[in-house]
Amino acid sequence: MRIINISNGDRISTVWTDAFADSLRALGELQLEENGIALSDNEMTERVRAHDVAIVGWDARPLPASLAEDLGELRYVCCYSGTIRGLVPKSIIEAGVSVSNWGDHPANGVAEAAMALLLAVLKDLPKAVGVARSQKWGVRTKRRGSLAGTRVGIYGCGVIGRRFVELLQPFQSQIRIFDPYAESLPEGCERAASLEELVDDCEVLVIHAGLSNETTGSVRAEHFAQLPDDAVVINTARGAILDQEALFAELLSGRLRAGLDVLEPDYLPPDHPLLALDNCLLSFHQLDQLQWPPRPGLTPMQQICVDNVARFVSGETPEWLFDPDRYDRST
Amino acid sequence: MRIINISNGDRISTVWTDAFADSLRALGELQLEENGIALSDNEMTERVRAHDVAIVGWDARPLPASLAEDLGELRYVCCYSGTIRGLVPKSIIEAGVSVSNWGDHPANGVAEAAMALLLAVLKDLPKAVGVARSQKWGVRTKRRGSLAGTRVGIYGCGVIGRRFVELLQPFQSQIRIFDPYAESLPEGCERAASLEELVDDCEVLVIHAGLSNETTGSVRAEHFAQLPDDAVVINTARGAILDQEALFAELLSGRLRAGLDVLEPDYLPPDHPLLALDNCLLSFHQLDQLQWPPRPGLTPMQQICVDNVARFVSGETPEWLFDPDRYDRST
Repeated sequence: MRIINISNGDRISTVWTDAFADSLRALGELQLEENGIALSDNEMTERVRAHDVAIVGWDARPLPASLAEDLGELRYVCCYSGTIRGLVPKSIIEAGVSVSNWGDHPANGVAEAAMALLLAVLKDLPKAVGVARSQKWGVRTKRRGSLAGTRVGIYGCGVIGRRFVELLQPFQSQIRIFDPYAESLPEGCERAASLEELVDDCEVLVIHAGLSNETTGSVRAEHFAQLPDDAVVINTARGAILDQEALFAELLSGRLRAGLDVLEPDYLPPDHPLLALDNCLLSFHQLDQLQWPPRPGLTPMQQICVDNVARFVSGETPEWLFDPDRYDRST
Repeated sequence: MRIINISNGDRISTVWTDAFADSLRALGELQLEENGIALSDNEMTERVRAHDVAIVGWDARPLPASLAEDLGELRYVCCYSGTIRGLVPKSIIEAGVSVSNWGDHPANGVAEAAMALLLAVLKDLPKAVGVARSQKWGVRTKRRGSLAGTRVGIYGCGVIGRRFVELLQPFQSQIRIFDPYAESLPEGCERAASLEELVDDCEVLVIHAGLSNETTGSVRAEHFAQLPDDAVVINTARGAILDQEALFAELLSGRLRAGLDVLEPDYLPPDHPLLALDNCLLSFHQLDQLQWPPRPGLTPMQQICVDNVARFVSGETPEWLFDPDRYDRST
């Protein structure tokens, strides 16, 4: 069994630890090629074709579409991270190569991040801290809230949305979910037939949809307008799912509140008025970076990759495989 | 049935709304006396003795101990808020008067506040916001964590501690509890026989004990020293339960992190070094102020009081009654 990873530049050491490489070497002959950017497309294709398994991820050079025309030995592409599009052409899946990603690995981290942002915004936590720093004791706000009985609308009920619902359930909110692809919903949750129905009378809107052609720009000005004053919008998915300018307008007017871990593009220019708002908590894709407390052994992300390669090597089916439909709906 | 409330000064309108007073008037003859501070102790005692029920709370003049010597008509003291000591002398309970407070009403709000602080500190949320404001992109910290698998020690398992455990359970932490008065613990939680055992190998310490002679100053320097670097201390109970100077020293050295909604005394002088720390989130008893979203009808606090007076009027036993032991252990 021959395994290859071709990096896009210098290898990112936080992923390719000795323990990770050694675990893969125990399963096959591992070739780690640095500086793939220096290869021609033909050289890249030839190298991958000569291996049974290609490992891809953040630091990998994307696989060329020409592979689909002649797969050579390639039968499995194991992505250690989440995003597949941009790394693996759909034609390779259609040509019959098994392609997997980290599956539900990020679900807990993103769901925790969403819950952290939601509670911080709902309880005006940055303002509470600001009050402390500025010594303006006794500043009171009527916007500090509780999740108990609050009407929460969740857009997207894949692995992340489901994990978020698990965390939310004991807070005794009223949960409504819009996800046209979810065949079943978690117990006690109401189904919304549309985004309009989701935001109707909704006090907290949480985005857990994947970014796809269908979801890009799908939450628009008219949906934000349906939310009541001081309603909270939480986004830990992708910025482009929202019409950001429409949301920013509602935030700048002070009518809505938001906790945004993600923006499109990732950062704001230093003079952007959003940066000065009390009613908008921006965390710039930092909240699902989960490094503490330190734990021995492989990271969960590395372990999922090693487990999946082990399954493939032993003739079992790897977990979290993509079909063309899932590919289209994924980020 | 005659019901009285004697306020300590001007009546606090946020509690004594028309709807609250009207609900009590439906149960008996209600006397609302303002400016009780102008009454002599004898006048105060005489007025209360002439009533079956006394309503007390934040804005009430404390009941005099002399009442216990001659209770008159008084058979029930209904406190609409939580703190009993300072409002109701223990001798009145010992003389056989039923005394109740708001029971588990604040449990959800305080538990939510503790969870909001815990997630914010664990994920370095104020720093994430600070990074946004100061445009220092790419600042990374190895302290951003997850509750999954994290060892959480909870000091105190009354109504608030139990509610916090309910909120924490789906986060899949390892939960250990120290509470010598809890006969049973929530499922899946490990019992610690002492504070020393609670903090042993503990990554997050959450205080949910009541303030009593026994708990005052009970978490001391040696307990903080047992915690690992970057461990998180959360306190939404009372500041005096901790040796604050010992905790402050660990925070000022940067070794531990904390989220403190409560301090003893309530505020810090404007030049206090704790106010400038990134690893200490101070919220100054603001987080359990739960006013949003607005809900129609009586507040839960008012409703518990009205329900309890209704029980008393109809010959049933009010909920959340105190006996002398519970009185001693309460705040």
